[in-house]
Amino acid sequence: MKRIKTVVATLLTSVLLFSCKTKTTTQKNNIDNKVDSLLKIMSVEEKIGQMTQITLSTFLTTNTFDQHTKIPTKKIKEAIVDYKVGSVLNVISTAYDLPTWHNLLTQIQDEAQKTPNKIPVLYGIDAIHGATYTVNSTLFPHNIGLAATRNDDIVKEGAKITAKEVRASGIRWNFDPVFDIGRQPLWPRFPETFGEDLTIVTNMGVATVKGYEEDGLKNQTAVASCMKHFVGYSGPRSGKDRTPAYIPDIELWEYYLPQFKAAIDAGASTIMINSGSVNGIPGHANEYLLKTVLRDQFGFNGVAVSDWEDIIRLHTKHKIANTPKEAVKIAVNAGIDMSMVPGDYSFFTYLVELVNEGGVSMQRIDEAVGRILKLKFELGLFNHPYPEKEAVQNFGGSSYKKSALDAARESITLLKNEDNVLPISKNSKILVAGPGANSLANLNGCWSYTWQGDDESKYPKQEITIAQALEQEFGVNNVKNISVNGFNNSKNFELKALQNAAKGVDYIVLCLGENAYAESPGVINDLTLDNNQIALANAAIATNKKVILVLTEGRPRIISSFVDKIQGVLQAYWPGSQGAKAIAEIIIGKVNPSGVLPYSYPRYTGDILTYDHKFSEALKEVEPNVVKQVDYDAQWAFGHGLSYTSFEYSEIKLSSNILKGNETIEVSVEVVNTGNRDGKLAVELYTNDEFASIAPSVKRLRKYKKVSLKKGETKTVTFTLKATDLSFVNKNLKRVTEEGDFKVFIGNKETRFTYVN
Amino acid sequence: MKRIKTVVATLLTSVLLFSCKTKTTTQKNNIDNKVDSLLKIMSVEEKIGQMTQITLSTFLTTNTFDQHTKIPTKKIKEAIVDYKVGSVLNVISTAYDLPTWHNLLTQIQDEAQKTPNKIPVLYGIDAIHGATYTVNSTLFPHNIGLAATRNDDIVKEGAKITAKEVRASGIRWNFDPVFDIGRQPLWPRFPETFGEDLTIVTNMGVATVKGYEEDGLKNQTAVASCMKHFVGYSGPRSGKDRTPAYIPDIELWEYYLPQFKAAIDAGASTIMINSGSVNGIPGHANEYLLKTVLRDQFGFNGVAVSDWEDIIRLHTKHKIANTPKEAVKIAVNAGIDMSMVPGDYSFFTYLVELVNEGGVSMQRIDEAVGRILKLKFELGLFNHPYPEKEAVQNFGGSSYKKSALDAARESITLLKNEDNVLPISKNSKILVAGPGANSLANLNGCWSYTWQGDDESKYPKQEITIAQALEQEFGVNNVKNISVNGFNNSKNFELKALQNAAKGVDYIVLCLGENAYAESPGVINDLTLDNNQIALANAAIATNKKVILVLTEGRPRIISSFVDKIQGVLQAYWPGSQGAKAIAEIIIGKVNPSGVLPYSYPRYTGDILTYDHKFSEALKEVEPNVVKQVDYDAQWAFGHGLSYTSFEYSEIKLSSNILKGNETIEVSVEVVNTGNRDGKLAVELYTNDEFASIAPSVKRLRKYKKVSLKKGETKTVTFTLKATDLSFVNKNLKRVTEEGDFKVFIGNKETRFTYVN
Repeated sequence: MKRIKTVVATLLTSVLLFSCKTKTTTQKNNIDNKVDSLLKIMSVEEKIGQMTQITLSTFLTTNTFDQHTKIPTKKIKEAIVDYKVGSVLNVISTAYDLPTWHNLLTQIQDEAQKTPNKIPVLYGIDAIHGATYTVNSTLFPHNIGLAATRNDDIVKEGAKITAKEVRASGIRWNFDPVFDIGRQPLWPRFPETFGEDLTIVTNMGVATVKGYEEDGLKNQTAVASCMKHFVGYSGPRSGKDRTPAYIPDIELWEYYLPQFKAAIDAGASTIMINSGSVNGIPGHANEYLLKTVLRDQFGFNGVAVSDWEDIIRLHTKHKIANTPKEAVKIAVNAGIDMSMVPGDYSFFTYLVELVNEGGVSMQRIDEAVGRILKLKFELGLFNHPYPEKEAVQNFGGSSYKKSALDAARESITLLKNEDNVLPISKNSKILVAGPGANSLANLNGCWSYTWQGDDESKYPKQEITIAQALEQEFGVNNVKNISVNGFNNSKNFELKALQNAAKGVDYIVLCLGENAYAESPGVINDLTLDNNQIALANAAIATNKKVILVLTEGRPRIISSFVDKIQGVLQAYWPGSQGAKAIAEIIIGKVNPSGVLPYSYPRYTGDILTYDHKFSEALKEVEPNVVKQVDYDAQWAFGHGLSYTSFEYSEIKLSSNILKGNETIEVSVEVVNTGNRDGKLAVELYTNDEFASIAPSVKRLRKYKKVSLKKGETKTVTFTLKATDLSFVNKNLKRVTEEGDFKVFIGNKETRFTYVN
Repeated sequence: MKRIKTVVATLLTSVLLFSCKTKTTTQKNNIDNKVDSLLKIMSVEEKIGQMTQITLSTFLTTNTFDQHTKIPTKKIKEAIVDYKVGSVLNVISTAYDLPTWHNLLTQIQDEAQKTPNKIPVLYGIDAIHGATYTVNSTLFPHNIGLAATRNDDIVKEGAKITAKEVRASGIRWNFDPVFDIGRQPLWPRFPETFGEDLTIVTNMGVATVKGYEEDGLKNQTAVASCMKHFVGYSGPRSGKDRTPAYIPDIELWEYYLPQFKAAIDAGASTIMINSGSVNGIPGHANEYLLKTVLRDQFGFNGVAVSDWEDIIRLHTKHKIANTPKEAVKIAVNAGIDMSMVPGDYSFFTYLVELVNEGGVSMQRIDEAVGRILKLKFELGLFNHPYPEKEAVQNFGGSSYKKSALDAARESITLLKNEDNVLPISKNSKILVAGPGANSLANLNGCWSYTWQGDDESKYPKQEITIAQALEQEFGVNNVKNISVNGFNNSKNFELKALQNAAKGVDYIVLCLGENAYAESPGVINDLTLDNNQIALANAAIATNKKVILVLTEGRPRIISSFVDKIQGVLQAYWPGSQGAKAIAEIIIGKVNPSGVLPYSYPRYTGDILTYDHKFSEALKEVEPNVVKQVDYDAQWAFGHGLSYTSFEYSEIKLSSNILKGNETIEVSVEVVNTGNRDGKLAVELYTNDEFASIAPSVKRLRKYKKVSLKKGETKTVTFTLKATDLSFVNKNLKRVTEEGDFKVFIGNKETRFTYVN
């Protein structure tokens, strides 16, 4: 029963295309007027319905929804007409194809047309690393892998493709990107972050927002983004999902908040709130953060949506509200505009009561609903509520897979290459083993056709595993493959089988790491790789063959007990749909790896530290008056990543040794590809503040640029530094740059300059 | 060249003995007047000398100092006369006997008599868990073990004995106790804490201060205490010593500050400052904490001393001061009264310059020096600067060892006793094995005759090891002992030797854990017990004998990989000089164990949580709408500890179900010893706040009482609760008790009451 309605663009819109600036302003004013008019005629219940977001299963009770299924009339009426629900999210258990999505969305919008003001429903989805929930979409590397590319263009390109494929599905709101900084590797959503560095998190998050939104929300190539999760979600002390973080204000301002400000300045439309608590205050009750910081200081005027059930959880989980109704009052008054309720209509009922009793003001309701309506207008939903025929052509573009492949190629990181064991020559005999060898889940990770991403049956038939990719590159006859599908299969851990199969091969490609997981089910108790996989690694080592370890993992799992005995290590992160091909291309040498770590890979469970730690972490008092400088003994340092070619850096040149006030200095360095292959290099500029009123970090990444260098080629890379690039948050929570000497580091070179006000 | 000078007590002092209250006030005024008079006639250099504390090796260059050695004249003159140093600390490499101490201190005080105002030198020492640096002193269990006793009287008794033995040595200032709360088990000073609970840390810390000081500082049974370390030292994020802590204000006020306020109210004389940084601000530069909180809000007027070299380290380590001189300026202006420089006279030189240049005011100097002089007067140093003959009789009292033994007996914690494997009957054949079996270091831990406590040769000859204690209890013929001395001896890890020796025995007593360590040298990278010891445990298990694991360890080292296969586990912490005897008495059943854990013993390296975590730590979202309650899966919970007898609790009785305003309620419970042995029981009262404006903890320990119960005996234990016992720190950093329902838990019983304002 697929129906796609087309609506003719208004003359006004067409005319405005010719004058962008005027258009935006006029359109904005127009929208504000429309919102105001609508608010005037809406009932309280209609308004509160707009603030209510429910999940699909609330009114769709079948697991087998397809392009022909009809939503039970009574249930959809209850949701959209009776409870006036303004937003729906999610899927039921699996990804849908385009016709199914269109069928679903058309029925929902049809129902919305039966409400007094015909306000269209806004559908939201977690389209993480691609259009997660659309069959045959293009799945990119997860953010943690993208961060390793040090290439913002790749990130933006991926977001544009995701936007197109989501919009083609008929959906216009994507709960992405994650702006949480990944400084707690136990956290199961670490793979969804851009790693431990603020500059990368900010730049790549903003690139994602622009990729989603910069064509204009009305455009069929755009979706509304959702910055998440405001704020501090990624820093749980125990490492578990949705558990308390303890983040002092100075750290919140230094590492957790600036990226949101940058995204707001870049125009991000919506924001999702942190499920956890920070310093004992749940995100959804933190009026200071949600109003003073987010609205007053950061100037955000978009929609703030709760995370899953998180308003009720103020009562059931955080226990700061003594009834569910009190929870609604606290959250709405704190500044939540929309509640991802999502399984019932309790939020609607409580909030209607609260408004009638005066517990929540109409002004607060109108503020929230105004933001939601404005977003719906901006997305063109009022004029074009239905899936857009024209958007369908944006799905599955021929270049998309190539983009995903390029992203994987640039993300995969060569961590170890003893005696240049890699690349492997074409006619080598290879045994591919380990639980990751024949699995798709460990390539795609979370949010891949299912929430957990671990259902192998849901992946497109044409997707290939690492073993298949190696067969394609090396030839079937050169690749022995004894593994079976997945991480839960005990056959993958038969040590004897591995050792028998290794006879006669030149190399073992051992595929270890993590299966797919998302959120709370991904909680672990130990960062160390599990004992079964360690035993398999030791069995491979015992064969005395050369062993190449391919890691597909969302987090850096500790492997120090055996990795010194392995010759080559490739970190693939969760590289997405094209990951296996990229891995095989790197192993055979068609592609020269250029990823560099976006986190410090720890060597020990009790020695977790970010690269930008303070100087005092690097000192050890071995006797009362003997203090030794000891570098952080990571397994591999942040920024580490090898190449098949070699690069050299010239001395760093500065346009001036003194940086004054608001002026800038140019920092340039020549890089030469001194090896025998073309290659790409992530050029990174770090600084440190030699002395400052807050104990400074040993270094901070300030700028990065990915450059391609043919063999023998030299390029000059220039960065511009200004005072704000050197700033930090002082004890008064003000961002300042203090006068004094700074070191600047690029590659293995360093120099120094002085900043004066 | 020992000389003990005796000085006749003044008539005034004798008279005042009859009127305590008057005495105190009058004495106080007298002292203030004396301080003021002295300040008026002292030169700037004399004043700054008083603020300077150096270590012995600065003027004593020989390692072999004894009762006859003379300090080089030139060096001591340089220190005391030229640089006018007011305080000295420490020893050189080993503990001294009483005559040596007296020789040393007499020479120092003789030199002080050559200064213009004959201001005596104040000697300070780290007499941790006993008179660390005096030969043949009585060493008690470390604080972490004392905390397991849940018996404040034992703590106070130990402190009184320590005070006597320190004073007998001629020393009047003890850098103890630690008030840092032990919530980061990786931290190498964890054993010096009273564990993870604030109530225990506060009560036992205050008991220690009283033990040291309550006889009056002039008395020969007292020493000045030193609260340490102000504040946040124990919470380093990376777990390493003297590294950055990130503690939000609300947590600082909830868990790190209240114990200092309690100790100040109890009259503690001095305070030592945190070497690390909290939220980027080094302790020694934190004017807000050192002035606003410590002085203005907490009303502390005693001496604030730096920790080792920590003023200069504002420059060299924390890098907040761009010169060493600037470091001195920052620290003194922030409120440090005395600098533990300690290896040179740079502090003196810089501070004289700063005062002359106006960088530090004379007012600040006079404030600091006034506090130091006042302390010296209070300690009676002006009248009796030399080691006191009368105090010598307070050394090595016949009852002291019994007190240390009782402390060890009550601290040792029976963690596991499968099928009542313990106690072991007298005629059993036992193999005692493991690196801890023949070692004294692992019984005494840090600060035991040396800083690290790991030099076996420095321990008194009469001290016995676990193996020797077992031989005494079971008879030499029943105990096989194959271990050799210490943790660094590879023979201890010979698995075959252990398995051969196990033939014919009934039980293996396997002594594992940690060697002694202190501060930075005790840093570890993994909380898991090392692989050698795990292998030894597995070898013992493989014999199929009953295995009793005796842990001597400062921190809870993870043993989950093997402990399920071991029948009995005794946690001895670092039980001190009488620890071995107590362990053997418990193994044979002469003593019924009654210690309970003062921390949550973790099962996994990535699952570290305190017992008083928030509710949200105990929930797991297994599917988007399926949230499961999961208890914290500790190896053993905080408060866990078994007995050889059994106890039962009646239902809890409340004097009222409503607690009003400033009233109190009585909470009582009957406990019955239902087993066949006499025993002691730690009765603990926990509460939780069902809903609160800050996410509440699942429970908090509020009261505890250790009771002795003969077999069959019943006792009623009554606690008094008032509103402040239920309070918490709210978002405005105010301590409040909010109206609402509270649960109260004792043993396996719970009830509920309501608090109304």
